[in-house]
Amino acid sequence: MKNLKERALEYHKNGKPGKIEVIPTKLCSSADELSLAYTPGVAEPVLEIDKDKEKAYEYTAKGNLVGVVTNGTAILGLGNRGALASKPVMEGKAVLFKRFADIDCFDIELDTEDPQKIIDTVKLMEPTFGGINLEDIKSPECFIIEKTLIEQCNIPVFHDDQHGTAIITTAGLINASEVAGKKLSDLKVVVNGAGAAGISVAKMFVKAGVRIENLLLCDRNGVIFKDSEDNNSEERSLFAQDTDLRSLEEALVNADVFAGLSAAGALKPEYLEKMANNPIVFAMANPTPEIDYKLAKSTREDVIMATGRSDYPNQINNVLGFPFIFRGALDVRATKISEGMKMAAAKALASLAKEPVPKEVISAYGQSFSFGPNYIVPKPFDPRVIEWASVAVAKAACEEGLAKYPIKDWDLYKQELKERMKKHWK
Amino acid sequence: MKNLKERALEYHKNGKPGKIEVIPTKLCSSADELSLAYTPGVAEPVLEIDKDKEKAYEYTAKGNLVGVVTNGTAILGLGNRGALASKPVMEGKAVLFKRFADIDCFDIELDTEDPQKIIDTVKLMEPTFGGINLEDIKSPECFIIEKTLIEQCNIPVFHDDQHGTAIITTAGLINASEVAGKKLSDLKVVVNGAGAAGISVAKMFVKAGVRIENLLLCDRNGVIFKDSEDNNSEERSLFAQDTDLRSLEEALVNADVFAGLSAAGALKPEYLEKMANNPIVFAMANPTPEIDYKLAKSTREDVIMATGRSDYPNQINNVLGFPFIFRGALDVRATKISEGMKMAAAKALASLAKEPVPKEVISAYGQSFSFGPNYIVPKPFDPRVIEWASVAVAKAACEEGLAKYPIKDWDLYKQELKERMKKHWK
Repeated sequence: MKNLKERALEYHKNGKPGKIEVIPTKLCSSADELSLAYTPGVAEPVLEIDKDKEKAYEYTAKGNLVGVVTNGTAILGLGNRGALASKPVMEGKAVLFKRFADIDCFDIELDTEDPQKIIDTVKLMEPTFGGINLEDIKSPECFIIEKTLIEQCNIPVFHDDQHGTAIITTAGLINASEVAGKKLSDLKVVVNGAGAAGISVAKMFVKAGVRIENLLLCDRNGVIFKDSEDNNSEERSLFAQDTDLRSLEEALVNADVFAGLSAAGALKPEYLEKMANNPIVFAMANPTPEIDYKLAKSTREDVIMATGRSDYPNQINNVLGFPFIFRGALDVRATKISEGMKMAAAKALASLAKEPVPKEVISAYGQSFSFGPNYIVPKPFDPRVIEWASVAVAKAACEEGLAKYPIKDWDLYKQELKERMKKHWK
Repeated sequence: MKNLKERALEYHKNGKPGKIEVIPTKLCSSADELSLAYTPGVAEPVLEIDKDKEKAYEYTAKGNLVGVVTNGTAILGLGNRGALASKPVMEGKAVLFKRFADIDCFDIELDTEDPQKIIDTVKLMEPTFGGINLEDIKSPECFIIEKTLIEQCNIPVFHDDQHGTAIITTAGLINASEVAGKKLSDLKVVVNGAGAAGISVAKMFVKAGVRIENLLLCDRNGVIFKDSEDNNSEERSLFAQDTDLRSLEEALVNADVFAGLSAAGALKPEYLEKMANNPIVFAMANPTPEIDYKLAKSTREDVIMATGRSDYPNQINNVLGFPFIFRGALDVRATKISEGMKMAAAKALASLAKEPVPKEVISAYGQSFSFGPNYIVPKPFDPRVIEWASVAVAKAACEEGLAKYPIKDWDLYKQELKERMKKHWK
C-alpha cells in the first residue's frame, strides 16, 4: 500500500492536474446557441442587470458563487507558504463547497502580505461573487481584513479559520456538556492557543453561555492575564483575566473544558489528570492533536474527547460548517453572516447529533452512531446536515432582516435542498 | 417563435442561473478521498510547490486556468455598463474558452475605472492563473493596463478586444488580398475607428505586410492626420499621416481595403463606389455593420465582404482566436503572448481556409465552403482550428524562447489536442 504522501500527490496529478474545472451549464454546440451564450444574445441580460442589479442573481452564476480568498500566510499545519503553494488547499476547499453544498467556488490566491491590499482587492471583486470565504490568512491581519470587508461589502464575508472551527466546536461543547451532566454557565473553560481560531472559539463559547469570567485564554507562554506581555491585541484583551494563574497546568486544575488550537503534545497527561470530573477535551491541533486520543483515554476513562482527526470519534471538521452556512446565506441573499446565523448553525449541528443516524451514514462509515461521549457532532457524510444547518442559517438571516430574498415556504426550501444535493449523494 | 431577447433571457435563467459552474475533477465521496483532497493529504502538494513553483502546473488547475478580467467599461456594442452588468459577457467568454479549447476560466469583474487598480489586482492574482484575458476595458486605459501587465507578469496577458479582432481580420486580409489578386504591400488601406480594436488592426496589418504609408486611420471626425486634434495618443500618432485627405470619403477614393471598427452605417454606398476594383470591406461594427451586407453586394458585385455577423459569409469572430492562442500558450507555459505568436495564429487561420472543409463543418452549417470571396476565414465550428492555430502559436513560442515547457513531439501534441477536444465535439 502506498503511503499518504504518494497517494496524495498522485490524486492531485493524475488525469487533469488539480482538483477543479469550470464547465458550461448551457448548451453551446451550434451557431444559434453561440448567439445566445455570447454576442448578440448576451446583450439582453447585460441590459437587464444594468437596469436592476438584483437581476445578476437570475442571469449569472453570482448567486451560487463563493470566492475562496487567501494569501497563504497561515496554511493549516504548514504556516506561511505563500499564495502559490496554498492553491491545492484552496482548490480542496472548492471541492468541499461543491460536494457538500453544491456551491461553485473560484479559488483566488493573492501575492501579498499587506492586509489593506487584500481588503482593496476583495472589495473590487465584489461584483463577481455571491460571497467571500477568507482562508488561511494569518492573525492578527485576518481580523482587520474580515472586519473591514464585512463593513464594506454587501455580500457575506466569512473567515473560515476563525469561525468554522468555532461553530463546530461550540456544537460539540453544547452536547459534551450535556453528556457530562454540566451546564454551560457553570463550565470552567481553558482555551489554549490565542490565534485566529482560538480567539474565535473563546468568543463563541461565551455567546453560547459560558461565563467570560470562567474562561482562561492561554498561549505558548501560558495564561494571558491582564498585565501579561501577551495581552497585546484588542482581541486578546477581551479574555485577559485579572488572575494569579500563570501556566497552562495551573489553569487546568479543576477545569471542565480544554479547547486546544495550539500544537501537538500541549496537553500533558498530568494536566489532564488535574481537570474536573468528566473533562471535555477538544484537541484540535493538526495533524497531531494536543494529546493523543488513546493516551487521553488511558489517562482518564471519563474524558469526553474530540480531535481534528477522522480516525478517532468526534472529529471537529470545518466541512460541517462552511458549506452549509454559505448555502443558507446565499439562498436568502443575506448581506452578511451574523453572529446569530453562526450560532444557529452550531445549535442545528448539536441537535442533529441527537437524532438516530440514517442508513446512508451507517453505510458510509461502516458503523452506526448514537448520541453520547463518542458521538457529540454529526458526521460529514451525513446527507441530513445540509437540511438542518442551512435551513437554520437561512431562518436566522430572515429573522434578523438580513435576507434580501427571504424564503416563504420552508418545506419547499428543504425539498429544493434535497433535489440540489441528489447528484452529489448518488 | 420567440424573439432573440426572450430566448437569450431564458437561456441565461433556465435551470441553474448563469452559464458556468465549478466542479471537482477528482472523486470526493469517502472519508479517505476527503483526506486526499483536503487535510491531511493536501499538505503534500503544498510542500512540493513550496519547494518548486513549477510544480503548481502538476498539482493544481493553474496551468489550464485563464482569468477573464474586466471592469465592464467597454462592453461590446453597449459601452460602459459597469462590472456587475458585464458578468453575462464574461461567463460567455468562459463558455467559449471551454467549448473551443477546453480551457477553464474564472470570470473576474472589477468595480473600478482606475487602470492602476486593475493592474495591481491582476498582479496580486498572478499565482491563481495560468494566463489573463483582459476583456471589455475601454481605451485608452486598456493599452497601459495590458502593456504594464505584460511587463510585470510571468504569465501571458492578452487583451482580446485589441488583438483578437486584429488576428482574425489579418487572417481575412491575407486571404482577401489573394482572392482580389493584390499584394499586401500594394494595398491602400483605410482603418475606420481609432479605438482599441482599430489601432490593433492597423498595427497587425502593418506587421503582416501593409506599408504604413499606405494606411490611413480614421475616426468619427475623419482622417487622423499629423496635425489633427484627434492625433492625441501615442498609439494614434503611429498612424497619423502627413496628408491633405480629411474625410473618410476622401480617404476611400481608390482604396483597396476598408476595415471598419466603428459604427452602423459609417460606410455609405457612394464611398464604396469610389474604392478600387475588387474592394475588400471588413464591416465589423456590432450588431449592425458599417454597411449592410446586401447593400454592399448590390452596390458593387466585386466587393469581398466580411462582417461580425454569423448570418452572412466571412464572419470575423474572435472565437477563432483567443481560445486557441491561450491553448498554445498554456501548453508550452509561455511567459507571454508575443507578436510572433499572434501572427502565427493569423497565418494558420488563413492557411486553414484554403483546405477543403471536413464533413463535420458541412453538417454543422448545413452547407459546404471553399476558398474564395465568400470563404476567407475558417468557421468557428470547425474542429481543425485548434490543431492548426494552437500548434502554430505553441511553435512560435518555442522558436522565440518564450516556452518554459517546450513541446518535443509535435505529432503527439496534435494527438493530445484531439483527445482533449473529443468530449466537446461529440
